Amino acid sequence: MPFHDTPIFPIGFRCASRNCGLKPSAKDLALFASDVDAVAAAVFTLNHFPGAPIILGRETIRGGRLRAIVANSKVSNVATGAKGLDNARRMAAAAAAEIGTSADKVLVSSTGVIGLQLPIDIIEKGLCGMRAELQSNPIVGAEGIMTTDSHSKALSCTAGNAIITWVAKGSGMIEPNMATMLVYIFTDAQLDTQTLDRVLRGAVDVSFNMLSVDSDTSTSDTCAILANGMAGSVDEKEFAAALAAGCIRMTEILARDGEGALHLLRCTVRGAADLSEARKIAKSMVNSPLVKTMVHGADPNVGRLLMAVGKCSDCTVRADSTDAWINGHAVVQQGVRLVFDEKAVRATLGQEVVDLVVSLGVGTAEATAYGCDLSKGYIEENAAYYSS
Amino acid sequence: MPFHDTPIFPIGFRCASRNCGLKPSAKDLALFASDVDAVAAAVFTLNHFPGAPIILGRETIRGGRLRAIVANSKVSNVATGAKGLDNARRMAAAAAAEIGTSADKVLVSSTGVIGLQLPIDIIEKGLCGMRAELQSNPIVGAEGIMTTDSHSKALSCTAGNAIITWVAKGSGMIEPNMATMLVYIFTDAQLDTQTLDRVLRGAVDVSFNMLSVDSDTSTSDTCAILANGMAGSVDEKEFAAALAAGCIRMTEILARDGEGALHLLRCTVRGAADLSEARKIAKSMVNSPLVKTMVHGADPNVGRLLMAVGKCSDCTVRADSTDAWINGHAVVQQGVRLVFDEKAVRATLGQEVVDLVVSLGVGTAEATAYGCDLSKGYIEENAAYYSS
Repeated sequence: MPFHDTPIFPIGFRCASRNCGLKPSAKDLALFASDVDAVAAAVFTLNHFPGAPIILGRETIRGGRLRAIVANSKVSNVATGAKGLDNARRMAAAAAAEIGTSADKVLVSSTGVIGLQLPIDIIEKGLCGMRAELQSNPIVGAEGIMTTDSHSKALSCTAGNAIITWVAKGSGMIEPNMATMLVYIFTDAQLDTQTLDRVLRGAVDVSFNMLSVDSDTSTSDTCAILANGMAGSVDEKEFAAALAAGCIRMTEILARDGEGALHLLRCTVRGAADLSEARKIAKSMVNSPLVKTMVHGADPNVGRLLMAVGKCSDCTVRADSTDAWINGHAVVQQGVRLVFDEKAVRATLGQEVVDLVVSLGVGTAEATAYGCDLSKGYIEENAAYYSS
Repeated sequence: MPFHDTPIFPIGFRCASRNCGLKPSAKDLALFASDVDAVAAAVFTLNHFPGAPIILGRETIRGGRLRAIVANSKVSNVATGAKGLDNARRMAAAAAAEIGTSADKVLVSSTGVIGLQLPIDIIEKGLCGMRAELQSNPIVGAEGIMTTDSHSKALSCTAGNAIITWVAKGSGMIEPNMATMLVYIFTDAQLDTQTLDRVLRGAVDVSFNMLSVDSDTSTSDTCAILANGMAGSVDEKEFAAALAAGCIRMTEILARDGEGALHLLRCTVRGAADLSEARKIAKSMVNSPLVKTMVHGADPNVGRLLMAVGKCSDCTVRADSTDAWINGHAVVQQGVRLVFDEKAVRATLGQEVVDLVVSLGVGTAEATAYGCDLSKGYIEENAAYYSS
């Protein structure tokens, strides 16, 4: 899957970002717009305390058409009651007025601290004049939605006549559940709402839904796709494959930038009884604090792999048919730890990408989960996130 | 529940511990013995990769009688195949010969690194002459089973005519699943096997099964109780209450000594739809890395409580009926963050014991989970456990 060296937008999409005063000086407001109405689909967090933008977004997406996305960072507008929902509506209306569309065609996102009311006056003022700053570099939009991200996240590729572009943020409170952190996908492909919704869910299922930085599911997770059709029709199969590949690549980028992380951790389970068990065991490995600290310390404590697989007590696991590999080195065979070249395995654990593979030998299902190591940096960032 | 100031043994129980050479100089071998055969019950880990001592222990406990427990630290005898099981049997036989009983009345435990073969010759040699060192201080036995524990763990109380004594170890890889880390309970009460098994399971269910240091389930979890009857019969209800209270107290001691921890974290869920949901949500809170780092940093980021409750997407949670308290300070009402005295809540988060309480307002079930904060010390201990 060849991604563009520098991310570009599909035909008819532009963005702008600003500091409107929520943060001291960093950018905190982003606007994404299509020149024409776009067919749209989205998936949202399943957390029982969705933010006001999620509540509004579920209503907005039912229309199946979007013209713009407006997003702020620093304050997430979650646990803010009726006033929070009213503020989210005001944010949509202000962006619609700026772009020249109606509020029901604007998707709103807010990301940052939970439980504080949105300073809506500042945001309304901040949106004034942003239309004139709209430009064709997706990185500009990505910069406006960063929280603890160490870098801006955008990606693009070509799929037939069309272009697909991903803009995302996320580094902590990430274990999406049938949705994801903030990921916006833009394409000039022409697709109907049902098809767009179907290919989005398929791609999210093997990518963002298999990502976990810290097992904590955000109250603001949103993944939306806008297809403005300006490049004409595409082959659905080719488009779906490109969409899934880009979602997996963005998942890896988000995992690698997990708070405090130094490694991208990929855990693959093969030979599982069924897909749901393969996914569950892969997630158990990628979420295990003892596996994550083992990767962080490059310490080939392979018993922890078995522990993390074996603790899935409701899955089909047979000790005597379980094999395991660390970056291609066989470390467990038929449930027994092998004598292996510890120096070589230790060296391989120092690589930026660490692949842990377990073969269960009880079926044919396979799944990969994406995560990162657990470091002191995670503790540092999260022991004082609210106060800092 | 009044516990003795200094833990003592019930009538007829004694213990000894030694350094037999598995560790450089710290104690690594413990022997617990009853003067007469004791009625016994036990619960073991549900991990799919149980250690050899667990496989043997399940066989041993079917006899319903124990005379002794022998345990070593440093090497856990897990993922060691047929040779590992043979070594566990040799360890039981050596302890039986030393005590003067048969191997089927000796429970074996091994705790430490997974995946290495037990140096059984060293252990057999180490057991020689330990009978002569048996003494009445339970702390001596507790010292022999420590791994990353920062202190030895023993506790005792009186229940009617009888005494109950707990000896335990554990500080990491702790989320017991229908079993626990290593906890041995000794009593001189007279109880039949069925009653003993029933009261043990009842007590474990509200204590060790609600404990999580790091969500990782050990391959060696064992909780066994020996009742030698030397103090005569007891009132079952009184005994069960004392047993549960002591198990909860030992759970708190283990949680507080979680690797790198500075706080005991108690998460209570009230007003849940049913007991299983109350337990699940309390566990979700106590396991959330973002809640744990919030406690560590004394940072009153109360949105994380809602996040951790709300991510239980398959439980009944209504945002508008959810209230929350931090050490008695109301911080959320009907799903909306309250304006509260941040300085006071910050101060209260600095206490050694932190109580987080959530009331769901959807039913009457209640549960408490026990855990600890997440600190850089946890990362330090676990990034190099195997190598150190």
